[in-house]
Amino acid sequence: MRSNYFYFRRISTRWKDNDIYGHINNVEYYSFFDTVINLWLLETGELDIRDGQTIGVCAESKCRYHASLAFPEEVDTGLRVVHIGRTSVRYEVGLFAADSSQLAAEGSFVHVFVDKKSREPAPFSDKLRAAFQSIYLEVSQET
Amino acid sequence: MRSNYFYFRRISTRWKDNDIYGHINNVEYYSFFDTVINLWLLETGELDIRDGQTIGVCAESKCRYHASLAFPEEVDTGLRVVHIGRTSVRYEVGLFAADSSQLAAEGSFVHVFVDKKSREPAPFSDKLRAAFQSIYLEVSQET
Amino acid sequence: MRSNYFYFRRISTRWKDNDIYGHINNVEYYSFFDTVINLWLLETGELDIRDGQTIGVCAESKCRYHASLAFPEEVDTGLRVVHIGRTSVRYEVGLFAADSSQLAAEGSFVHVFVDKKSREPAPFSDKLRAAFQSIYLEVSQET
Amino acid sequence: MRSNYFYFRRISTRWKDNDIYGHINNVEYYSFFDTVINLWLLETGELDIRDGQTIGVCAESKCRYHASLAFPEEVDTGLRVVHIGRTSVRYEVGLFAADSSQLAAEGSFVHVFVDKKSREPAPFSDKLRAAFQSIYLEVSQET
Repeated sequence: MRSNYFYFRRISTRWKDNDIYGHINNVEYYSFFDTVINLWLLETGELDIRDGQTIGVCAESKCRYHASLAFPEEVDTGLRVVHIGRTSVRYEVGLFAADSSQLAAEGSFVHVFVDKKSREPAPFSDKLRAAFQSIYLEVSQET
Repeated sequence: MRSNYFYFRRISTRWKDNDIYGHINNVEYYSFFDTVINLWLLETGELDIRDGQTIGVCAESKCRYHASLAFPEEVDTGLRVVHIGRTSVRYEVGLFAADSSQLAAEGSFVHVFVDKKSREPAPFSDKLRAAFQSIYLEVSQET
Repeated sequence: MRSNYFYFRRISTRWKDNDIYGHINNVEYYSFFDTVINLWLLETGELDIRDGQTIGVCAESKCRYHASLAFPEEVDTGLRVVHIGRTSVRYEVGLFAADSSQLAAEGSFVHVFVDKKSREPAPFSDKLRAAFQSIYLEVSQET
Repeated sequence: MRSNYFYFRRISTRWKDNDIYGHINNVEYYSFFDTVINLWLLETGELDIRDGQTIGVCAESKCRYHASLAFPEEVDTGLRVVHIGRTSVRYEVGLFAADSSQLAAEGSFVHVFVDKKSREPAPFSDKLRAAFQSIYLEVSQET
């Protein structure tokens, strides 16, 4: 399964990520999605956090939880793109305990690119489209 | 739309909820889901955070973002149940800026009840089933 | 002790605020400080989150923890000012479980006001100074 | 300055750590303190998160902010102990942008060890005391 994700970052967990049941709270998983996506976007050179005119806004996200994760373990976070539109893109994210091949959680995240001021949808650049294609996986069923 | 949610709590927002784009970060919405669900469970008397033998574990969650929310506004968080199984339940959550009738986000959240020690699925009590039924809404399509 | 704080806001807690030991994690207390301070600044009309040229940057913060707080209880958060400089101000914050007179935690927080672009210290307005004076308490010893 | 901290961990930052002003929110720094302390305690073998009878409770914390940190940079987090009591210990933490020698923030954090059930102070073991001594730095002035 790891081989179906094309960009990986290892994310360290924090003491307070664990909730009262002793595992990383379900909410925090989305923070890993958000983080790996933006790390990748920054690496493409097409996301300028401070001065960019186009920003990515989350339109939809989803997570299926398969196995628990817990501080102090680190999380290998894998990224791929499964749909590329004109102003939006759907990413999928896989979370694995560090060095594990067992998928702990599967996420889905839709970014709509909008103008920072007007918040109107803004088509993304050809360079960004090519970057999306470089981590694209064709998937047969709706996720 | 507010009338299709049967239990409401107003949640205050925090300065750090706003991310660099000036709105509540997409991750934090899930914290509102998690909070309203557990507040409601506590009110049913069927969730004992400290000493209970059965706990609810999140198996799946989802959010569709329709309009942005931002600190300092407060968030009216509405809850309903749309599927009741033997050991699991699907809730739906609606987020509204305080006193607004405009749906800012729609969430879905599946709890599987498990034994705290063994983490094996554990059927929930009749009392809890009745509580779920009291906030149940029949929905025609998959969400 | 509540009477020594001059501005109060009730902050709701969230499920994930509780850490593995069943109480609100020590980190989150600072979020309550940050929140009540910015709520108060917004009410003075002197903080413009989006378009203001002057922003408050935290130079120092501190907390003494006296009693635990836990979700689902709400937190009454009281604010006062104990030192007013030319470009900086020291606030003190008291946290109380809702309606309780027992001080659960005492915080201290220094804001330095700086120009948003240059990050150079920027003297605050007379109107803001008057607002600080309206919630000022003279304290005899270092806190 | 790095040489005055004796245990280091690199912590990755997350997209939502950045607040509306584009830097890591002041609150999150305390999460780095909390994390490095508990990582170190786990390595000593004297902290058993799940089954231990003695837990460390935060009695006081403090931070001086010298320079801003921001996602996506990683944070080198250094730890030392500056006071060892019978049931309590004071740690100091230094935060540095990855590979930087410039101190971005200085933290102080007091743990009181208590019995998990009774919450009464509990003297820590000789083994833990020896571990504290192994990262001890004598400091001349109050911090």
